Amino acid sequence: MDYQGLLADRTTLMQTNAIREILKVVSNPDIISLAGGIPSPASFPMDIIQELTQKVLTKYESSAFQYDFTEGLLPLREQVSILLKTRGIQALPDAVNITSGSQGALDAIAKLTISKGDKIALEAPTYLGAISAFNPYEPCYIPMDMDNEGLIPEALEDTLKTHAIKFIYLVPTFQNPTGRSLTLERRIQIADIIQKYNVLLIEDDPYSALRYKKDPLPAIKTLAPEHVIYISTLSKIFAPGLRIGFYAAPKFLRQWLVLIKQGVDLHTSTFNQALAAEYLEGDYISTHLPRIIDIYKPRQKAMMDALNRMLPRGFSCAPSDGGMFLWVTGPEEFDALTLYHKAIEKGVAFVPGQFFYTNPEDGLKTMRLNYTMADEATIEIGIEKLTDAIGAIQQ
Amino acid sequence: MDYQGLLADRTTLMQTNAIREILKVVSNPDIISLAGGIPSPASFPMDIIQELTQKVLTKYESSAFQYDFTEGLLPLREQVSILLKTRGIQALPDAVNITSGSQGALDAIAKLTISKGDKIALEAPTYLGAISAFNPYEPCYIPMDMDNEGLIPEALEDTLKTHAIKFIYLVPTFQNPTGRSLTLERRIQIADIIQKYNVLLIEDDPYSALRYKKDPLPAIKTLAPEHVIYISTLSKIFAPGLRIGFYAAPKFLRQWLVLIKQGVDLHTSTFNQALAAEYLEGDYISTHLPRIIDIYKPRQKAMMDALNRMLPRGFSCAPSDGGMFLWVTGPEEFDALTLYHKAIEKGVAFVPGQFFYTNPEDGLKTMRLNYTMADEATIEIGIEKLTDAIGAIQQ
Repeated sequence: MDYQGLLADRTTLMQTNAIREILKVVSNPDIISLAGGIPSPASFPMDIIQELTQKVLTKYESSAFQYDFTEGLLPLREQVSILLKTRGIQALPDAVNITSGSQGALDAIAKLTISKGDKIALEAPTYLGAISAFNPYEPCYIPMDMDNEGLIPEALEDTLKTHAIKFIYLVPTFQNPTGRSLTLERRIQIADIIQKYNVLLIEDDPYSALRYKKDPLPAIKTLAPEHVIYISTLSKIFAPGLRIGFYAAPKFLRQWLVLIKQGVDLHTSTFNQALAAEYLEGDYISTHLPRIIDIYKPRQKAMMDALNRMLPRGFSCAPSDGGMFLWVTGPEEFDALTLYHKAIEKGVAFVPGQFFYTNPEDGLKTMRLNYTMADEATIEIGIEKLTDAIGAIQQ
Repeated sequence: MDYQGLLADRTTLMQTNAIREILKVVSNPDIISLAGGIPSPASFPMDIIQELTQKVLTKYESSAFQYDFTEGLLPLREQVSILLKTRGIQALPDAVNITSGSQGALDAIAKLTISKGDKIALEAPTYLGAISAFNPYEPCYIPMDMDNEGLIPEALEDTLKTHAIKFIYLVPTFQNPTGRSLTLERRIQIADIIQKYNVLLIEDDPYSALRYKKDPLPAIKTLAPEHVIYISTLSKIFAPGLRIGFYAAPKFLRQWLVLIKQGVDLHTSTFNQALAAEYLEGDYISTHLPRIIDIYKPRQKAMMDALNRMLPRGFSCAPSDGGMFLWVTGPEEFDALTLYHKAIEKGVAFVPGQFFYTNPEDGLKTMRLNYTMADEATIEIGIEKLTDAIGAIQQ
């Protein structure tokens, strides 16, 4: 039968994620992969899973395996409310909702707000998972310039003056792909601008707990609470495979977002929500999070040091105080996709930065390097191979 | 700020699920609820959860808590492929995909296929969860008549002659809300019709394993494999709170459906998929499913017997060989919503059937009764209260 004729108009906008294809290539164990975007399995609290399961079975019995409310499991909402308080965000348990990963929040927000052709303003480069959540609803993207201090506030204000924007999407802290963070001064400026222009900001914050240097920065949500939907996840501080995300949103929007999630998956796994509630309530996180940081912090340092030592003239790595990625920019004539193929030959993989831009002509001389999946020695060898490859294509 | 102005055009089509509101009312423990639509917690295999968890931790270690492929965890896809074979459906593991409940499959199919105004043909009445998955994509519904033998094939053929239909949505076996099943003869007729008209059928089959009488019926998927997406779930034969659904679809559509799911939730919980794989691989289901049937079969019989004995003249209950629901139709002048309010006074709740129709004028004299959540004695008292209430409004 004619399956092609069954596709909706929107489907033309969707395409295979190029990075996904890259990740398939580099599953070859002979290649050092700095291409991934996932946490180290060593960061999962495997030693307490049986204990958490036992606690859930004792406390919840069969209700942990029953259908539950779309809003989220109440004990988890209570714990997330407490977690948000440690980040300076005031949200009572009934103002917090649970989603199937932060991806579930991005999909629901897009479904709620985007009519075909609506404009979304975002950092260039930006998080690809957000693009894959937004694309099916057929928006236009207005990319905004960043530098090493994050989004440039003037770029935001220019965008808001020129375009009617449905919402702004930002990853202000340890951004994927760049590892960069918005400075405190700019957070205050951006909070002022979104209030001045009365525009909604989606603040996606998966990484802020993974801080290796300096003091925490306030979420923009704390500076303009009525203008921000704050999204976060337990994927980087508990386990991604459990698919537990959450958000704090203004009440009017929250009610709609819950209704939308009901049509998408009814609710997030009750059992996994109960495990997450026990993880937070038992304060396992206060001993486990420092262990995660103990794994990643030396890896970040090893990569940063190796890059600073080995990268040829004209290449630079953006400063970063946490997260999972470093961002390298090459000189004017450099093409990261050409390097990618040479690097695979040399036995190391990364993601060419161009894939993180909505404008296909941007980011050609940039690359994203992940440091969570390899140990320090491997990272050092990987960067050596990478600089070898740079040498080879520059000859 | 003006939150209302942020809503997409599609959002106007979404509305609070009326049944959800009813279920909130009847959480009052003094009311016997025949209104629910959920499995009995006594049907969950609580005795083996620790064992399954231990097996998963031993076999998968940290990979059960890592990100995984959107298509689904391979060992679970292998097990589902075997399960489908027992239902006569030939689908290799890579032709099976896992979703976050069958709701996740319904959302992805709708997102893939429905452009605004596209026509969806469905049974009247139909499953409300499907409507809440489809609505955000702005389809029109073409309801088709059913009788006690399921969808009337002539109604389907008339619909296909008159309308360009994007897909047909059916729950052919132990339908929610009616408990009715499509006969073998009609399955064959419908398989012929969809092939003749080259139209896609979504066959939603959550209940067929819950059979209390007579022999199994073949899935329509077995009769017209290239024209059917077959959807099912482990919610009724393992545990709904784990949110594990699956589907078998033609390859062209499957590739798109996976891409869509990636934007919605990246993938379904790895841990829960691993638990489900162990549940099936260890063949726990062959001892556990008969236990589930041992709980529900006498409850169905108790409700059927009580209805046959007590319902006044002019009321009838549709025959049903399995599932979770019975469907009662009253005489011409009967209004089930009026009865609902009187029944709550008398201490029993059900769902007025009108909520399961897309046309608001239909189904006014029908009601859905659930028998999974109350034991036989309670069901008997519930039906007595219900007939009392009928008597009271008929005076």
